[in-house]
Amino acid sequence: MHESARIAADLRAMLGADAVLTEPEDLARYEAGWRYGAGKALAAARPGTTAEISKLMAYCQARGLRVMPQGANTGLVGASNPDASGEMLVLSLERLNKRLEVDPVNRTALVDGGVLLSSLNEALAPHGLLFPIDLGADPTLGGMIATNTGGTRLLKYGDVRHNLQGLEVVLPDGTVVDALNRLRKNNTGLDLKQLFVGTSGIYGVITGAVVQVVPVPRQQATALVGCVSGEAVLALLQSLERDLADVFTAFEVISANALGPVFTHHPDLRNPYGTGQPPAYTALVELSSTLPGAALDLAGVLEERLGAFVEGEAGEGLTDVFMGKPDEFWALRHHISESLRSEGKVLAFDISVPRSRMAAFTEAAVALLAEAYPFIRACDFGHWGDGGTHLNLVWREADAPRPTAEVVAELQTRIYDLAVRGFEGSYSAEHGVGPHNQRFYDAYTPAPVKAVNQALKDRLDPDRLLGTTRLD
Amino acid sequence: MHESARIAADLRAMLGADAVLTEPEDLARYEAGWRYGAGKALAAARPGTTAEISKLMAYCQARGLRVMPQGANTGLVGASNPDASGEMLVLSLERLNKRLEVDPVNRTALVDGGVLLSSLNEALAPHGLLFPIDLGADPTLGGMIATNTGGTRLLKYGDVRHNLQGLEVVLPDGTVVDALNRLRKNNTGLDLKQLFVGTSGIYGVITGAVVQVVPVPRQQATALVGCVSGEAVLALLQSLERDLADVFTAFEVISANALGPVFTHHPDLRNPYGTGQPPAYTALVELSSTLPGAALDLAGVLEERLGAFVEGEAGEGLTDVFMGKPDEFWALRHHISESLRSEGKVLAFDISVPRSRMAAFTEAAVALLAEAYPFIRACDFGHWGDGGTHLNLVWREADAPRPTAEVVAELQTRIYDLAVRGFEGSYSAEHGVGPHNQRFYDAYTPAPVKAVNQALKDRLDPDRLLGTTRLD
Repeated sequence: MHESARIAADLRAMLGADAVLTEPEDLARYEAGWRYGAGKALAAARPGTTAEISKLMAYCQARGLRVMPQGANTGLVGASNPDASGEMLVLSLERLNKRLEVDPVNRTALVDGGVLLSSLNEALAPHGLLFPIDLGADPTLGGMIATNTGGTRLLKYGDVRHNLQGLEVVLPDGTVVDALNRLRKNNTGLDLKQLFVGTSGIYGVITGAVVQVVPVPRQQATALVGCVSGEAVLALLQSLERDLADVFTAFEVISANALGPVFTHHPDLRNPYGTGQPPAYTALVELSSTLPGAALDLAGVLEERLGAFVEGEAGEGLTDVFMGKPDEFWALRHHISESLRSEGKVLAFDISVPRSRMAAFTEAAVALLAEAYPFIRACDFGHWGDGGTHLNLVWREADAPRPTAEVVAELQTRIYDLAVRGFEGSYSAEHGVGPHNQRFYDAYTPAPVKAVNQALKDRLDPDRLLGTTRLD
Repeated sequence: MHESARIAADLRAMLGADAVLTEPEDLARYEAGWRYGAGKALAAARPGTTAEISKLMAYCQARGLRVMPQGANTGLVGASNPDASGEMLVLSLERLNKRLEVDPVNRTALVDGGVLLSSLNEALAPHGLLFPIDLGADPTLGGMIATNTGGTRLLKYGDVRHNLQGLEVVLPDGTVVDALNRLRKNNTGLDLKQLFVGTSGIYGVITGAVVQVVPVPRQQATALVGCVSGEAVLALLQSLERDLADVFTAFEVISANALGPVFTHHPDLRNPYGTGQPPAYTALVELSSTLPGAALDLAGVLEERLGAFVEGEAGEGLTDVFMGKPDEFWALRHHISESLRSEGKVLAFDISVPRSRMAAFTEAAVALLAEAYPFIRACDFGHWGDGGTHLNLVWREADAPRPTAEVVAELQTRIYDLAVRGFEGSYSAEHGVGPHNQRFYDAYTPAPVKAVNQALKDRLDPDRLLGTTRLD
């Protein structure tokens, strides 16, 4: 019997026949990533319990079989896809989705690692509760933890790390670490779960978690605010935060270059600027509150604050203030990426810098591009409230050289160098490392950080069987 | 020259004469802890810069000299005091307090590890900002990070871990790890700083940090609410949180046994219950908001919500509702520990359990004590909003056996077993491990957690020179 056939037979005996896939057409969806990543799997195993995963990992370690854990495969850096060798087993968590226990008094939920974000929120809804990490995809909770996703409402709720209380992990040797505690306070030395947050599953397979959840807000208020410059955006941010911190949920900013294409490609979406040109930046401000309208008129408060800002010293930095419906305003934000792809090839960057340097960084990046790559249009938008910007570059092949791998690589290096070395920033604000960002990790990570990762990997996964991301 | 004299001479040459203390009367305050810990130091060194600490650590590693980093020495588990050997050098951070840079747009502050909490808040005040970790002591920022302090307003702001963006650490070999980033989003693999949060400085000396700060609230509202039982307390907590989450800042709960002695020993403090007996529990509820009173009448909202609760189904669980001044109500809370010490010897426990099990755990603990130690009075109070309880036991020597070390140890074991094994709880909610809790760490910590700590220690401090807490 061929080696791969032998492994498949072993796995079927261990997990049941329907838990193991080997046909190319069945494997395709596990092999290719959402944006990057296109490998080849030996097989895909879909165990349904932590005990099965423990057995599976022990088996893989005994045979030296490399494993790629995968949730809903919605990551953006290729960190959940097998490499091209055809020798990795995809360990899909999609059937590990049975545990989903809500504790309303503790305000937590215990979930299996393969439970989808949407399933968690469906189970929480009858209790008036919500897991507040707001994303444009529907990942598994295990994947969210391995990526430490942030999303659009980080300003108020933080990222996954901020909302995680307990974790269950299967180590590469099959050991199950049960740290599924439901404690808000637990200062007993090293917080082990932190090793598995944002490390793409290379230290263990996340099989369960206890997350903290929040009451569903009773009201929301949103405004679009036109700003003449990045500096004006920052002045507005600081002013709103000072007054409205408790209810300030999101502060998303869209450049004119990113907003224009939304209206071009979606004539059904209302353009608040009418036929006029959008200003340099448009800020989407969202407030939300659990307080009922009788106690707090959220829309009124927002309108009053924005009015006072316009009347004040920094008011000339604003061009327009539109109060409006959350759904309508968020639709503009959510259609940017796809509208830009209709304009040409998009090179996406997921950068963060200190908030106070957002305007200066963006200006410097645009100037660099204008000088060195005049055929590219910089279409930036992002989470300015969190210092994050998705600097998207639209490369219109009609009037530009072909985007060869060399040119793209050089351009990436120049932009990331600017962010990381010039503006104390990060080459990955929220998407993670993965194969896509591996060379930037290698270049920018201090040696002691790599040494600690090496010590952890040596202890937990000495044969380097788990995942493809290398942090040492 | 004697070995210790040689070391002192070397350190004086390295750091300056006034940076090194060797006289017993000078060393005393570094040797004894706030509550536990009473060791003997070889000497105390007080460097003023990160570069000096780097040199010092390299020197100590080369000589095999053991080092105890110490901030303001306000910890409660003896983790910052030298052991009894007389061979440890105390590395005091008290003079490492020069950097203190506020970035109001980024809403962060960069501080030296030896900066005091009070100094940070003084520097933030002119900007209308605040570091929201609220404690009954004035620790250094480095010490707060090494302990991961929580405090009374964790419900709204989280613990130190939740408010930490960057860190600078000197490793035992003298390497300076500069991870002083000011980024809210930075998903680039392992978040190294997490290793140093809550681990009592055993992996490195925290020399600098970037912390996230918050706008100072414009208004507060507080109430004291009498509750007939722990279950009534939890019903109240859940109801308030559902409606008031955005502005809900603290939910402290005081048992009748803990509240009574406050009035006995502080007749100047007004007893809202008058001459009557306090009910089983009194909850201190605090709301705070950055919104001005014109936008939100916080006291009115609180009074309305409590009124509605009293009228509702669970209302019979409440005995009294007193609206009042924050300072007056918090004074009751802050005088508990010291009032209990006036009653007799106090054995303090710093326990957390899932919030939903607080009432049941407390009942079980009180029942256990009544049965096995009838001469002890259980005086519990704590942060019910965070699942934390400071179960304080008052041991009145007049009518009880002498609290021998054996009896105390047995009692601790029984209470912690109940919390940890019976109620999914923690033997250290917020104070940390340290020598005081070492035997409970050893007993309750899963083997894989110890194995990871061992790998980290082997890599970062192979000669085990730093600190006294053992996590492996």
